[in-house]
Amino acid sequence: MNKKEKEFVKNLVRSVENFPEKGVIFRDITTALKNKKGLQIIIKDLTERYKDKGIDYVVGADARGFIFGAAIAYNIGAGFVPARKPGKLPAEVESVEYSLEYGKNSIEIHKDAFSKGDRILIVDDLLATGGTAKAMVQLVEKLGAKVVELAFMIELADLKGRELLDGYEVYSQLVY
Amino acid sequence: MNKKEKEFVKNLVRSVENFPEKGVIFRDITTALKNKKGLQIIIKDLTERYKDKGIDYVVGADARGFIFGAAIAYNIGAGFVPARKPGKLPAEVESVEYSLEYGKNSIEIHKDAFSKGDRILIVDDLLATGGTAKAMVQLVEKLGAKVVELAFMIELADLKGRELLDGYEVYSQLVY
Repeated sequence: MNKKEKEFVKNLVRSVENFPEKGVIFRDITTALKNKKGLQIIIKDLTERYKDKGIDYVVGADARGFIFGAAIAYNIGAGFVPARKPGKLPAEVESVEYSLEYGKNSIEIHKDAFSKGDRILIVDDLLATGGTAKAMVQLVEKLGAKVVELAFMIELADLKGRELLDGYEVYSQLVY
Repeated sequence: MNKKEKEFVKNLVRSVENFPEKGVIFRDITTALKNKKGLQIIIKDLTERYKDKGIDYVVGADARGFIFGAAIAYNIGAGFVPARKPGKLPAEVESVEYSLEYGKNSIEIHKDAFSKGDRILIVDDLLATGGTAKAMVQLVEKLGAKVVELAFMIELADLKGRELLDGYEVYSQLVY
């Protein structure tokens, strides 16, 4: 994504104050995704970046990671694997718990999703504190596969998710 | 999708008995989406079908509809709009309530997602009773846009969702 494209997409992202709670500025990507040109720039950039990286599977995080994950997987000829909230996947799962600001959550992948040594790209819309992303890394590694990179449309730099992912390649399209 | 491709994809779908409850056979699409060839066949078929239909926006249903919706939107040069479970969208929404087997649910789209007269493709993974799909049709029409067609990867014919969508074009890739 060149500077002009970056600026174009950043101008499409809507900032909503006090959502989901007071004091938070929510970066609403729906206004960028509904824009035909915006969607082309976002997905094309990720496609170009990963098309020659030997990715076997793209893992998308429930739910907004699915938006990017399947499109990239299709474009680069990889498989798509959803990482889901608990109770959604019907077969045997591997599960990792992670901390939220209030309480805990967990994320699951089917145990037969990958084979040992498979090369994985993890995708989500947003890198904030990095809790979900780190849990996905652990899931992938529990299944014996290798995380090649993590890709996000938006990174909230203040929340230092990148530090939690130290030692892994992290790519974000827009940084706030 | 020709007959051979249909058979190939159908053989990839995993049937899980007694999920999410006793007596139900769950059609697990994750085993088809993680297959590189399977994903190519599924998304290419939908792309070919809709590339010349003048679709302005593809609406995908939370969460599995996002998998198909964004990939198709990108491929045909349309915008992508998520229809979400309550409380997920940050700006002003239009909302429609629908009945589930037990209780009620509702689905939301941002009020500024479309303009009057826009041509919409609605996408989800599964057509069962059609409750969610019908709610999405109502949402799109409340916002003054036109539903061109509804597309599903899987249709459970016994549950007669197609009847609930009478008067609308419905396409399903695999029928059970």
